[in-house]
Amino acid sequence: MRSTDGPEFAKGHGTENDFVVLPDPDGRLKLTEHRVRALCDRQRGLGADGVLRVVRAGAVPDAPAGIPADTWFMDYFNADGSVAEMCGNGVRVFARYLLDAGWAEPGELQVGTRAGIRPVIAHRDGGVTVDMGPASVFGRSSTSCSGRAFEGLAVDVGNPHLACVINADLAGLDLTSAPSYDTALFPDGVNVEFVRPVGADRADMRVFERGVGETRSCGTGTVAAAVAALRSAGQDTGEQVVRVPGGTVRVQVRADTTTLTGPAELVARGRLDADWWEQR
Amino acid sequence: MRSTDGPEFAKGHGTENDFVVLPDPDGRLKLTEHRVRALCDRQRGLGADGVLRVVRAGAVPDAPAGIPADTWFMDYFNADGSVAEMCGNGVRVFARYLLDAGWAEPGELQVGTRAGIRPVIAHRDGGVTVDMGPASVFGRSSTSCSGRAFEGLAVDVGNPHLACVINADLAGLDLTSAPSYDTALFPDGVNVEFVRPVGADRADMRVFERGVGETRSCGTGTVAAAVAALRSAGQDTGEQVVRVPGGTVRVQVRADTTTLTGPAELVARGRLDADWWEQR
Repeated sequence: MRSTDGPEFAKGHGTENDFVVLPDPDGRLKLTEHRVRALCDRQRGLGADGVLRVVRAGAVPDAPAGIPADTWFMDYFNADGSVAEMCGNGVRVFARYLLDAGWAEPGELQVGTRAGIRPVIAHRDGGVTVDMGPASVFGRSSTSCSGRAFEGLAVDVGNPHLACVINADLAGLDLTSAPSYDTALFPDGVNVEFVRPVGADRADMRVFERGVGETRSCGTGTVAAAVAALRSAGQDTGEQVVRVPGGTVRVQVRADTTTLTGPAELVARGRLDADWWEQR
Repeated sequence: MRSTDGPEFAKGHGTENDFVVLPDPDGRLKLTEHRVRALCDRQRGLGADGVLRVVRAGAVPDAPAGIPADTWFMDYFNADGSVAEMCGNGVRVFARYLLDAGWAEPGELQVGTRAGIRPVIAHRDGGVTVDMGPASVFGRSSTSCSGRAFEGLAVDVGNPHLACVINADLAGLDLTSAPSYDTALFPDGVNVEFVRPVGADRADMRVFERGVGETRSCGTGTVAAAVAALRSAGQDTGEQVVRVPGGTVRVQVRADTTTLTGPAELVARGRLDADWWEQR
């Protein structure tokens, strides 16, 4: 009855965006779409928003060109089994795992992703800073939510955002359905942030992610929120501490790029049951 | 950065009712209400419907009298940290863990619970049979759901049920809100089952658990459903295979007692992160 041990795993989260981490340096795991879905199933599996396979870039046949073979590569899958390019919360958990496993030292790391190499800084306190690339404002627009109209800034952080700085209680907003938006300005949909400044360099935020709904945390959303909060105070650059339902992050907006610093926590590590794995 | 290892755990489920199992033979773990909630948190913890601590009865100061000290005791906690007496799905996962750990052999086991000793049979295929105690019919009643009225049988399986045998598509029922019931007959509320026979000895079931909502599985509910399905065919005793959204179980209704046989699956085992555990 005693099962043999299957693949190793760890479970962790960044601002409550949670992941199953699968260490697989040499790319030997047969990680099918079905197995990703089974791992992420919250009742029948381990449960997570996604899977992060930790593999050397040289062992990933379809890794983008130009990533050195010995670079650690974040092979990222959504809970539905689809491949994703990049995830700001996931890359923090990924970097934290590398340190925890002794596969990297605190300081600057290069992490390979399907969106190319991302420089990250792994701090000794478990926090991780990720370069999120530049954020650009491309207009103003409006949305309505809970029967009220809000004005906001259209911000491109690799994906489209409408970040609305408001002077109202965020808890009073009903985000159970999607806020309206201008489909001419946002033909592919938009992530909508509601941002309430609390002092000169802090803001609270709630976010409705396109195609998902309200989430506990959205990395690119906090960058858009910081840009909007800074602009509302007459600044193009600067730093903001952004509090989301899942935790608190720090965003630095520079002329050339943006960085996001946030926590990453590992909860447990172990091995999948070999029978369970083989049957999937 | 590399954390030391914290307490051991396993994760498993029975018909999609899932548990974190904590082996603690000598009762040394300091399992606070706060830690139970943290473990069951699906984003920030491991995530589960409840925690099963595996401990010898002799190491449980408030175990019911009369349980021999070396009996394995299921110390069961709900996700909110409260103590529960018994859980039909949990005890299957508990027994499966004992076999997996080599702490019991296939066959009949005595499991200590806060409701007393429960005899269970652990099968070699991973399934477990649990004695659920007698089920008694105490009336007929009715409910309305999705704008339609249904007749059912009031069944006591340690807790109250209204099991309605219906000849309609179960998928068409809207169980997002509680079905109505007779508060005179069910002063403490009631679990409502909708049961559709599919042949002489099989039935499909959906259940609305009082205080919870629709669930993937309810052990006592499948017993009530089997009683109602048998009665609708003119039988007081017999066997029914009951399919719930979370899986399939087998119920035997005898004059003196009922038994429930169902699957239990272990997904993974490992250790909690020591820092994570200590900080909770």
